[in-house]
Amino acid sequence: MNANATGRPDDNRLQESVENFDAAAAKELSGKDFLLTWEKSDPALRTVLQAASILRDMRAAGIGTEAFSNGLAVSLFRDNSTRTRFSFSSAANLLGLAVQDLDETRSQIAHGETVRETATMISFLAEVVGIRDDIFLGAGHEYMVEVGHALDEGFREGALPQRTTVVNLQCDRDHPTQSMADLAHLIEYFGGVENLKGKKLAMTWAYSPSYGKPLSVPQGIITLLTRFGMDVSLAHPKGYNLIPDIETLAAEHASESGGSFVCTDSMAGAFENADIVYPKSWAPFSVMQRRTELLREKNTAALADLEQECLENNRAFTDWECTEDLMKTTRNGSALYMHCLPADITGVSCERGEVAQSVFERYRLDTYREAGWKPYVIAAMILLSRTPDPQKTLKTLIVQNKRRVAG
Amino acid sequence: MNANATGRPDDNRLQESVENFDAAAAKELSGKDFLLTWEKSDPALRTVLQAASILRDMRAAGIGTEAFSNGLAVSLFRDNSTRTRFSFSSAANLLGLAVQDLDETRSQIAHGETVRETATMISFLAEVVGIRDDIFLGAGHEYMVEVGHALDEGFREGALPQRTTVVNLQCDRDHPTQSMADLAHLIEYFGGVENLKGKKLAMTWAYSPSYGKPLSVPQGIITLLTRFGMDVSLAHPKGYNLIPDIETLAAEHASESGGSFVCTDSMAGAFENADIVYPKSWAPFSVMQRRTELLREKNTAALADLEQECLENNRAFTDWECTEDLMKTTRNGSALYMHCLPADITGVSCERGEVAQSVFERYRLDTYREAGWKPYVIAAMILLSRTPDPQKTLKTLIVQNKRRVAG
Amino acid sequence: MNANATGRPDDNRLQESVENFDAAAAKELSGKDFLLTWEKSDPALRTVLQAASILRDMRAAGIGTEAFSNGLAVSLFRDNSTRTRFSFSSAANLLGLAVQDLDETRSQIAHGETVRETATMISFLAEVVGIRDDIFLGAGHEYMVEVGHALDEGFREGALPQRTTVVNLQCDRDHPTQSMADLAHLIEYFGGVENLKGKKLAMTWAYSPSYGKPLSVPQGIITLLTRFGMDVSLAHPKGYNLIPDIETLAAEHASESGGSFVCTDSMAGAFENADIVYPKSWAPFSVMQRRTELLREKNTAALADLEQECLENNRAFTDWECTEDLMKTTRNGSALYMHCLPADITGVSCERGEVAQSVFERYRLDTYREAGWKPYVIAAMILLSRTPDPQKTLKTLIVQNKRRVAG
Repeated sequence: MNANATGRPDDNRLQESVENFDAAAAKELSGKDFLLTWEKSDPALRTVLQAASILRDMRAAGIGTEAFSNGLAVSLFRDNSTRTRFSFSSAANLLGLAVQDLDETRSQIAHGETVRETATMISFLAEVVGIRDDIFLGAGHEYMVEVGHALDEGFREGALPQRTTVVNLQCDRDHPTQSMADLAHLIEYFGGVENLKGKKLAMTWAYSPSYGKPLSVPQGIITLLTRFGMDVSLAHPKGYNLIPDIETLAAEHASESGGSFVCTDSMAGAFENADIVYPKSWAPFSVMQRRTELLREKNTAALADLEQECLENNRAFTDWECTEDLMKTTRNGSALYMHCLPADITGVSCERGEVAQSVFERYRLDTYREAGWKPYVIAAMILLSRTPDPQKTLKTLIVQNKRRVAG
Repeated sequence: MNANATGRPDDNRLQESVENFDAAAAKELSGKDFLLTWEKSDPALRTVLQAASILRDMRAAGIGTEAFSNGLAVSLFRDNSTRTRFSFSSAANLLGLAVQDLDETRSQIAHGETVRETATMISFLAEVVGIRDDIFLGAGHEYMVEVGHALDEGFREGALPQRTTVVNLQCDRDHPTQSMADLAHLIEYFGGVENLKGKKLAMTWAYSPSYGKPLSVPQGIITLLTRFGMDVSLAHPKGYNLIPDIETLAAEHASESGGSFVCTDSMAGAFENADIVYPKSWAPFSVMQRRTELLREKNTAALADLEQECLENNRAFTDWECTEDLMKTTRNGSALYMHCLPADITGVSCERGEVAQSVFERYRLDTYREAGWKPYVIAAMILLSRTPDPQKTLKTLIVQNKRRVAG
Repeated sequence: MNANATGRPDDNRLQESVENFDAAAAKELSGKDFLLTWEKSDPALRTVLQAASILRDMRAAGIGTEAFSNGLAVSLFRDNSTRTRFSFSSAANLLGLAVQDLDETRSQIAHGETVRETATMISFLAEVVGIRDDIFLGAGHEYMVEVGHALDEGFREGALPQRTTVVNLQCDRDHPTQSMADLAHLIEYFGGVENLKGKKLAMTWAYSPSYGKPLSVPQGIITLLTRFGMDVSLAHPKGYNLIPDIETLAAEHASESGGSFVCTDSMAGAFENADIVYPKSWAPFSVMQRRTELLREKNTAALADLEQECLENNRAFTDWECTEDLMKTTRNGSALYMHCLPADITGVSCERGEVAQSVFERYRLDTYREAGWKPYVIAAMILLSRTPDPQKTLKTLIVQNKRRVAG
């Protein structure tokens, strides 16, 4: 990271950082979709963070970051999301792209001809399509892959002037823009990626009175952070499993990186001596599976029953709350609290929630700083996929030093 | 067209093409609305296609196309339309304009003071207002004219700093951005406008299980392509007429250009030896007239009855489908299939539809290429109307050669 | 104002005008929200108008006005408003900013953690958040202040790279972008701010068949125009008071500026010898207070009763209409008619309304010119708050003379 504590960049380090680009990693990302972090190499992920950091520093230094003079960034959301919408439009704007939203109905799983046609029709002048589709377990990721294939064909056959890039803004499997922003935040907080090695992170389920929260955040966290030598504990009540093969993947990552990955049904055990805690609610894998089937069948009555059943189940675990007492058991009683926001705060947004008010309040600004990385991470993903030579593009922008504010 | 098969432009031809601008045609288009192709001269239409082609080539060559450094492009849609929305916002973005949507309720026909005031309030800093209003037969075109008059007055009286241009993105009479994109596609496909002469085009009705499809596409096609010496056959079941005076216009165009225009109630007859087929559903003129009256009266019950009646009528003509057998009867069995999309594909989007799956699949990418012209056609219309000297603007952009992607 | 009758600027006066910037006033506005005109000094307000006028002249002269090369302008509306939406997006576009809308539900008064978090999440890359919240008396202004505090904290604590500026696009207390546009219109109409001194303005209630119109326009007018030596008469039927302390403020302003402020329940008295009339409907203060309570309680039934009661009350005052007879009593029978639009026009938009058709028609284009100032006023507010040295920024843009249209 090239920013000092005030957020202002050191100009020499900004230039140096661009020089340090890993050419092989940039080549790996060039022209490719960003769907799942585990499809990308470690150097590729580091290059994304490096580019995100450079873009943040350029903006802090008042340097124009418009890599493109025109072009569209299409947002395709199946879900209302203020945060994701603003992160994506901020990223697009940072690079000189204009956002165009595609409104699709929430309840529909498009496929076949519809996907191919829509993918092409929205992409004629688009650099990127950002997709958020986390509602259908077993369908969100597949949908993004299908859009990618349609774009492959459209470009290959001369119907599209470019192979528009798909960026996953949250699917049923991964939430890479979130987990990468979380990683950037950790690197900044602990002063370097090398300092993450051996740190204990507790990714734990927490109680929430709401229903159907996606699994992609915990899945994204356990698969990504195990790659950097961290000791990751995944804690949840019995029955609140994540997708099994993704848990397996996390274990593999841990063994490769020299970290560890353990699953437990004790929140207290996960918190003990943790350096970082990430308490967050999600729906059990099996519930999400049944929900997808019922959504496909448009079985409204059964969906309502499932919701009731799930909310009742949840109520057995209201003690899964990130309290001051639990926080005291973490490393020096001062683990870093993380959340993707919005958090369910006890006594604030609900009667009983994921986190005690005093804990959240102490780390509130940290969660804002965590979220603040997202626009830059998304912009970096677009830049690295869509410019023929991202290092040269960044260098040119820095050397030109076109001021973001005239005068 | 200046693009070779790969879509990459020949730089010398790009420069030459700009030199070849028809000054009189550009003058005809300058400051004017684009509402109906038949209000424009042949050279004017060719100039629009020339500018569209140049803009496409510039983009392929990586040249910035922002004719404007700021300004709004207002979209006023009375209809949801992903395709039109993306075409318009792509066109705006290509020229450096920002889109601002105006949401109007679908069911309302505004007039008088409301139109004058709204037209002014949305146009203070707008270069263009793109309007799509194809729901009310006998009202869509009139509405656009009324908006134009309000803008005339606003500019004349100093309330507007410019006479914002109205572009028809589909009305009850014409769909000029579609028909011009179709024409560009045909010119590219057949290797020159001169090769369209004598080609037979079958604009035929086709069965669809949906209701109330506008007449503007077939009307746009028969009036435009008859101007280029083509032999246009309009085929539909008895009772599925288009607006009578527009059919008359097509006949006049054909006689002036040395082409022909025939109406028939035989799909097979129209397909026979056709070079191009354009099978597409629409509602009968008389139904659309009654529908407009009922919409004005807000007679919901009668509207539902009309829909039922019309759908039942349609069902008598499910054999109006573009099948492989019909395709075999076209010139060498290989006529070009066209569609404005989305098509109703038998066995894909519906049980019985406008076109057989295998036919559509064979021409699918052609229909994508056809649609791909739309952003450039719309951008050309805006550029030619709103820049004082479009030839000079394009030349300046080409000579400056500002790269669309930095680096 | 630097524009002549044709709207085209005198280039020398444009340069001169920038030289004349009041450095102290610019400093007062720098980095500050624009919530209420009465929080700003006279020189600050004049500087806003000066910058608005310069931006308008620059555009008329074809000079690019993009003070920013990227950045977001966030619109947060609790109310549908075509005019405000277009004014804000025009202003943003003029300065090179991209608009991102935040959709909030109309009926919700957010507070506490939700406000702090949302304010931060939408502001990471935002120069400005324009808020329209005029529904809740006693809450709209407070909400904007709360957003401002959240942004203060976010910037101070390093979560935001800049202190995003809040611009009030209409609250329960003031409507500064409207009143400042009105002031700019008056200055242009009467040929200079010095000519406003001693002019009589009648801000009067007028009958409308609609309900719950906000008080912010009359409040904005009486507090602002009393500062320029005008004689302001506020006329309304008994019981249709504005917020009491804002009426008091107007009286203080009048006594300080050498103007006057009188309240009357006679529309005729207010119109007599008036140089300017501003007849407009609003809901009584006490009704708006009760309405806010009922909205908080979500008491739908009582809200409907209140609406009926209020509409019935209104009907006692249908003779509060700006008629030709009343207009004859104004100075030389030719007072300037003003309105923030849309007006309720008798026989046009309703049976009985605020203004007679012939009166409105005579001044219609004046009301358009009045509205035409809004984008420039908003842009000036953003520019003066968000650029470190607005004078230098404008000078640089003028000297660079980058053409808005290429070629």
